[in-house]
Amino acid sequence: MKKNQKKVSSKLWHSQRFSEGIDKITLEYTASVGFDRRLANCDITASIAHAQMLAKQKIINEKDLAQIEKGFSEIRKEVEAGEFLWSIKDEDVHMNLEKRLIEKIGEAGRRLHTARSRNDQVATDIRLYLREEIDNICQKIRKFQKVIINIAEKNTDTIMPGYTHLQVAQPISFAHHLMAYFEMFERDYQRMQDVRKRVNILPLGSAALAGTTFNIDRKMVMKKLKFSALSENSLDAVSDRDFAIEFLAGAGILMMHISRLSEELILWMNPLFNFVNIPDKYCTTSSIMPQKKNPDIPELARGKSARVYGNLISLLTLMKAQPLAYNKDNQEDKEPLFDSIDTVINTLSIFTDMLAGLKINNKKMRAALNFGHASATDLADFLVGRGLAFRTAHGIVAQAVSYAEKHGKDLSDLTKDELITLIPELSKSTDSANSAVLKMKLETVLSARNHIGGTAPRQVKMAINRAKARIKR
Amino acid sequence: MKKNQKKVSSKLWHSQRFSEGIDKITLEYTASVGFDRRLANCDITASIAHAQMLAKQKIINEKDLAQIEKGFSEIRKEVEAGEFLWSIKDEDVHMNLEKRLIEKIGEAGRRLHTARSRNDQVATDIRLYLREEIDNICQKIRKFQKVIINIAEKNTDTIMPGYTHLQVAQPISFAHHLMAYFEMFERDYQRMQDVRKRVNILPLGSAALAGTTFNIDRKMVMKKLKFSALSENSLDAVSDRDFAIEFLAGAGILMMHISRLSEELILWMNPLFNFVNIPDKYCTTSSIMPQKKNPDIPELARGKSARVYGNLISLLTLMKAQPLAYNKDNQEDKEPLFDSIDTVINTLSIFTDMLAGLKINNKKMRAALNFGHASATDLADFLVGRGLAFRTAHGIVAQAVSYAEKHGKDLSDLTKDELITLIPELSKSTDSANSAVLKMKLETVLSARNHIGGTAPRQVKMAINRAKARIKR
Amino acid sequence: MKKNQKKVSSKLWHSQRFSEGIDKITLEYTASVGFDRRLANCDITASIAHAQMLAKQKIINEKDLAQIEKGFSEIRKEVEAGEFLWSIKDEDVHMNLEKRLIEKIGEAGRRLHTARSRNDQVATDIRLYLREEIDNICQKIRKFQKVIINIAEKNTDTIMPGYTHLQVAQPISFAHHLMAYFEMFERDYQRMQDVRKRVNILPLGSAALAGTTFNIDRKMVMKKLKFSALSENSLDAVSDRDFAIEFLAGAGILMMHISRLSEELILWMNPLFNFVNIPDKYCTTSSIMPQKKNPDIPELARGKSARVYGNLISLLTLMKAQPLAYNKDNQEDKEPLFDSIDTVINTLSIFTDMLAGLKINNKKMRAALNFGHASATDLADFLVGRGLAFRTAHGIVAQAVSYAEKHGKDLSDLTKDELITLIPELSKSTDSANSAVLKMKLETVLSARNHIGGTAPRQVKMAINRAKARIKR
Amino acid sequence: MKKNQKKVSSKLWHSQRFSEGIDKITLEYTASVGFDRRLANCDITASIAHAQMLAKQKIINEKDLAQIEKGFSEIRKEVEAGEFLWSIKDEDVHMNLEKRLIEKIGEAGRRLHTARSRNDQVATDIRLYLREEIDNICQKIRKFQKVIINIAEKNTDTIMPGYTHLQVAQPISFAHHLMAYFEMFERDYQRMQDVRKRVNILPLGSAALAGTTFNIDRKMVMKKLKFSALSENSLDAVSDRDFAIEFLAGAGILMMHISRLSEELILWMNPLFNFVNIPDKYCTTSSIMPQKKNPDIPELARGKSARVYGNLISLLTLMKAQPLAYNKDNQEDKEPLFDSIDTVINTLSIFTDMLAGLKINNKKMRAALNFGHASATDLADFLVGRGLAFRTAHGIVAQAVSYAEKHGKDLSDLTKDELITLIPELSKSTDSANSAVLKMKLETVLSARNHIGGTAPRQVKMAINRAKARIKR
Repeated sequence: MKKNQKKVSSKLWHSQRFSEGIDKITLEYTASVGFDRRLANCDITASIAHAQMLAKQKIINEKDLAQIEKGFSEIRKEVEAGEFLWSIKDEDVHMNLEKRLIEKIGEAGRRLHTARSRNDQVATDIRLYLREEIDNICQKIRKFQKVIINIAEKNTDTIMPGYTHLQVAQPISFAHHLMAYFEMFERDYQRMQDVRKRVNILPLGSAALAGTTFNIDRKMVMKKLKFSALSENSLDAVSDRDFAIEFLAGAGILMMHISRLSEELILWMNPLFNFVNIPDKYCTTSSIMPQKKNPDIPELARGKSARVYGNLISLLTLMKAQPLAYNKDNQEDKEPLFDSIDTVINTLSIFTDMLAGLKINNKKMRAALNFGHASATDLADFLVGRGLAFRTAHGIVAQAVSYAEKHGKDLSDLTKDELITLIPELSKSTDSANSAVLKMKLETVLSARNHIGGTAPRQVKMAINRAKARIKR
Repeated sequence: MKKNQKKVSSKLWHSQRFSEGIDKITLEYTASVGFDRRLANCDITASIAHAQMLAKQKIINEKDLAQIEKGFSEIRKEVEAGEFLWSIKDEDVHMNLEKRLIEKIGEAGRRLHTARSRNDQVATDIRLYLREEIDNICQKIRKFQKVIINIAEKNTDTIMPGYTHLQVAQPISFAHHLMAYFEMFERDYQRMQDVRKRVNILPLGSAALAGTTFNIDRKMVMKKLKFSALSENSLDAVSDRDFAIEFLAGAGILMMHISRLSEELILWMNPLFNFVNIPDKYCTTSSIMPQKKNPDIPELARGKSARVYGNLISLLTLMKAQPLAYNKDNQEDKEPLFDSIDTVINTLSIFTDMLAGLKINNKKMRAALNFGHASATDLADFLVGRGLAFRTAHGIVAQAVSYAEKHGKDLSDLTKDELITLIPELSKSTDSANSAVLKMKLETVLSARNHIGGTAPRQVKMAINRAKARIKR
Repeated sequence: MKKNQKKVSSKLWHSQRFSEGIDKITLEYTASVGFDRRLANCDITASIAHAQMLAKQKIINEKDLAQIEKGFSEIRKEVEAGEFLWSIKDEDVHMNLEKRLIEKIGEAGRRLHTARSRNDQVATDIRLYLREEIDNICQKIRKFQKVIINIAEKNTDTIMPGYTHLQVAQPISFAHHLMAYFEMFERDYQRMQDVRKRVNILPLGSAALAGTTFNIDRKMVMKKLKFSALSENSLDAVSDRDFAIEFLAGAGILMMHISRLSEELILWMNPLFNFVNIPDKYCTTSSIMPQKKNPDIPELARGKSARVYGNLISLLTLMKAQPLAYNKDNQEDKEPLFDSIDTVINTLSIFTDMLAGLKINNKKMRAALNFGHASATDLADFLVGRGLAFRTAHGIVAQAVSYAEKHGKDLSDLTKDELITLIPELSKSTDSANSAVLKMKLETVLSARNHIGGTAPRQVKMAINRAKARIKR
Repeated sequence: MKKNQKKVSSKLWHSQRFSEGIDKITLEYTASVGFDRRLANCDITASIAHAQMLAKQKIINEKDLAQIEKGFSEIRKEVEAGEFLWSIKDEDVHMNLEKRLIEKIGEAGRRLHTARSRNDQVATDIRLYLREEIDNICQKIRKFQKVIINIAEKNTDTIMPGYTHLQVAQPISFAHHLMAYFEMFERDYQRMQDVRKRVNILPLGSAALAGTTFNIDRKMVMKKLKFSALSENSLDAVSDRDFAIEFLAGAGILMMHISRLSEELILWMNPLFNFVNIPDKYCTTSSIMPQKKNPDIPELARGKSARVYGNLISLLTLMKAQPLAYNKDNQEDKEPLFDSIDTVINTLSIFTDMLAGLKINNKKMRAALNFGHASATDLADFLVGRGLAFRTAHGIVAQAVSYAEKHGKDLSDLTKDELITLIPELSKSTDSANSAVLKMKLETVLSARNHIGGTAPRQVKMAINRAKARIKR
């Protein structure tokens, strides 16, 4: 045994091929164990499945298998306990674990790497890892959506200005506004599910690039590791990082949604808006200005969308124009991936908590509609109902708005008489003018958008119910 | 009628709201008709469906509808014939078409824009347009995959070096190599199908941001325009550009695959490789060097991947941190989208033709295996079969490679006697050594990778058959 | 002559090298004349300088030169008048012009391309073009800075909330706020000047990649075209696109500044802020909401920053990992460059006009300071002056802010008595408490920041004067 | 003292402002000390300079200063020895150090933060840090350039194919090829110097955003910290991250150069090329294929260019559309910056060593010119010397190339008689034909490009001498 251990040089195989040892600076530059050890658990799981298959196919014997299983069982505990001694001399997570296995169980450990290569091994590990994290992210999305629904349910009648171009457009309910985010995160969820399909393919068995000469049973490994299909081409299997890019694109879009929500929260926290209040515990103050309460979380989250964008562009750039099959460039795939996973998970977690604690300032929201002529469209629509063409009605209301503006009023504050003067069509009957005044009331305006997708409280309640059903599926 | 036409100012509505006219430079800066007129056909289709719904719901009358249909039928012809006079005064495709409709049919035309806004209108147009182009792209992918299959079928026995790190790794067949690209484009196809699901949602009815006060029937429009679902939230519907970003991510990955193939074609055209010959008609020569034959198409395609990456990052950046709902920033979504669609379609078209004409130089491919010790793994595997642990066998073969290299030979050129000297295990029986020599023959090496995904001709033929079945579905 | 014209095949040289003609689709895919004809003027200028050098060096004769000059003089007019018939058959701007020259002057035209290649020709053209546009951009920046200074001069006493985290921090003057943008655009200017140094190098004479066998005089061409130096290495000269990337990085940063200013203008136009009013002629209204006045220009400009970012990433990606020397990928350098130049120039132009017309709403700015405790730092500083350590003072004021908040007041509204109760240090003398009250007046707070870079009106006036001097240089 | 320590709550100031403590998850999400502690040394240096100024201006007394200096002197040692206990409870490097100072020296420590804010503090630290690293990078570039020059000096007569489009274009020397990279890195050096100018500006004194009420002397601090100028506007000073973006753009271009060199090294290591040999110690082998020698370093470096691109796009995205002044988003600026600095420095270091050990395989380089008709341009140029127009000569040589290709020869292998048959102009005199044959010899071709920037050995030697002079400056 001792002899064996000696043979295991610090680099498992380098010295037997080359006349000079590997350079220390090369080691430091090329070693990936600093970040890929995060894959340790997946690597062990995949190695055990591989060994079980080798044994079933008689490529190794049952005794070898038993030792490998026992060895890895111990190693897994060492890793979990933080006691495993990772060494950059052994370059990456795979060689660190394999070397340790050989230290523990000797010759049987040296048989493990039969019929595989690090190229298909790492591709398998990273797919196992990402699959788990996608499931994790999807759970987090669901939790976040539930908080959105909770708040929405309480705010179907909370009127606030709906903005386009950050100008007052039409009144909406806060519930309706929030439910827009439900939709965004629902797409994120669906997108992640689609990515998952393409992650959940087993590359193991592709070996270095061309397959292996051993009589392997890939389907057995596939089932053990719960993959849904086998990769169809060995060159592709070791070269492919599409799934990681696709995940990063999905993560980028998700973070974009977070950054939109953040932008709004920051805005709503501004004292002129004062629409919401984020609990103190999610805010910080200033080192110099004792009065400050800063919405740090949404600001930082808005900033963090940028890092996921950067990670996406890194990985796209990385893969560009690489000839087949595996090239060392690909080692650079992991850090952007891990960093994005962490960013998405941490951000969803903290947003779920923070949103749940959000205080809504109904009065300020409603007051923000005092100016902005938010019922102008409804007046125009009303005139259409009286027989005018929409384009004509639009023009007439525009002039009424100009009048109101000149007199420092909101359109909805115009009196019946003013309306009659401004809009000849209304002079025909007092009822008309009265109706017009009524149509411009904020509550009327809100309720009038009464169809699927509209902001009427009745519709938003139905939308919330559908949303509940969708996330239950 | 004439009076009506006068009322239609150069900007349909601007002047009635504002005291001063819009600035010429503003018009030029903000007008989108220069690029969004590409949506004309979709805009007309969607407007007709909208008008039909308005009529069914009695919001306009049947006579109005008939005029609108007739008017648009003429306008569509004008557009197709290139006779439509686009004007930046009318800002965008929507207003150009609406103004022309009013010119043609008067008051009925002024009723068309009832119960919609440009915000939901453009979202509808762009989804219709992109859906069509995705279908177009998917067809192109299928054609390209067929060419790949055709070439692969003829080359399951064409041996070439399989490279990793651009160093000779193991022999593979040219068919196997090409089929790796089949897999990549298959994923691109599947990804486009997934994007299509999220494109194929009808936003119309969301109006500016909150829905409309008219009694609309969104499902009717949905069916007429063959959308598969309605948008659930009006704010989200007018703000959402996820589908475009997701498409660009898919397009970026597709172009990355093209750029990888391009890199290889360029390499293979280098005289030292000389693996393939691209037909003259897809090459250019030099303005100064009369001997040159440059693989311009793959070089340019490799370059064009960069523009799609740029487009993706543009759109992600565009949407970052926008508050709800629609903001003018979004107008910038179209050019990156259109440019990427064109790039993908044109590149797939020309690659399909070019690849179909590719000449394969079998001899050069095989000759490139004369050096590189491509059968080293197989010798190691063979020794494992003789009972050695893989790690041990790996070490022994590494030393044999060093020996071969010192003597200027390829590993497969080592004689039985040399092998026996180098590898004590082989000295036990002459049969062993003979087998080892045999195992290292390229054809043996190729056929030995005989499992799903492996390069053995038998497996690749089966993979080709499965591929045929997959694209028929 | 006629015979000559016949020899000039549609592709000047392709047919003599290849057995089959170039494919139409290849032409369409590879032709660049659709966008590079923008270089026509520079191409002619550089060709004439090249021809003059060839004549001086006796490589062509004076008669040839005279004809070339005459021919190009005519062609330049054709181009300017929009009468030049560009043909994608002739691929690019260079071959279109050269073919036309040969049509016009025959054999002499066929001598022009002596001692150069399109590789060094296009590198020269694009540097000439970009140099001119950089000068153009720098002029635009200066104009924009002047408008900033003009507004600043009038607003050194206009008090507004200075925000950090979009929370009220301390009062600043609007002049001071705007002058922050002066600094940003000053850096943009300086950066463009630095880029210009690296643009202003002559590559001509590098020929295809290795130089030419003719006895050329590169310095003569350099002087004629006003370049400041010669490229030192021919391979580098034809491969280098650093200068374009560096320009795009500079353009991206500039557009980022524009997008920050845009964000603020959009915010300030929101009715709750109402800090500024953008003239009607730079705004648009809505197709559905008659009351809307949308700040389209800043929104669109904010969006356009995204396209320049995309262009930058395109060009970086394009150049990545290209082997030396020229590859066709590089043809893709032009569109991102041209698009970014246009975007920067148009945006600066319209912003200069728009800002000049901006109306400032002093009252609203000041009123926005009614809440936010903007003088908290000054109270803390005051206590430091009374001997407390800053960290201690900071803590005490924080408690005073909490008190004020609970009582619905701004800190500056606290009475002397309240202050004395809250801050024991002030109880020692009435003067102290009076001083504290005084210190918290907004005007006092503003004037108190009286050092280089501070917001005190006195300092801002001095900063404006220095700014004027800087842009005069 | 003990009392003081108690007052220093875990968050120095949070609790005095807010009714509830900060959340643990908020702390973890927002704390930056995990990465910004890299700034510790700069933070201490800047704090001491700030304290010295405060003392000189009598804002603190001399005794306080002495204590602060002593305290920091100890803390600096703790940090250097790795004994400092960083705590995320204290959020960032600044608060960790300040809290420790207060622990050590009490009240005097609480006076340090007078007249500054973390906003100007961090801006100062990061500029100090980056300035140092730019100097470091510039040194590394110089070392790398020296290695290039060393190799170039020995290889001015080493003939290799010059490629365009990866097709043989014209012969060049290996020295000339390498010197192209000298030029690229020279531009990188100059670019870094230009960035340095904009880094080297002192923001301290800007406080939170508006300046401070204390009577500070910014010039004194500027001189002590060796900055070349003061920031002119306090809002800009705390918001500006241009310098970091500009650095990342420069770093991205530098890494692009590295990736181009890497691409070539990888190509040249391919057995069909075999132009160079990278020392074993910079290569790795395979876990499965015992024969492999993989150029890992250049592959990984090619990949690492992608991460710097990603970092650049992150920072550009981060700053987009942020309103003034400081927002928490900016905390995300550090990791991309630090990561890029490390990448550039490590890559330059290892490339310098690796390149110095490169073995050049002259014979293979020359042999690669056996096919490719590399002297075609020279034959055309020769015919121009005989009076033909270049375009005409180009066409004639193109036909000669076609002939040679059909006969499986390189153009330079054509006999005098063949040339005479193919090119009627040569039939006039035997001398002509002999000269033509001579002109096509590779050495003749190389020497003929005899002008500044050309590949003639004489010129390259002169270029090397100029290069030496340039880096001495």
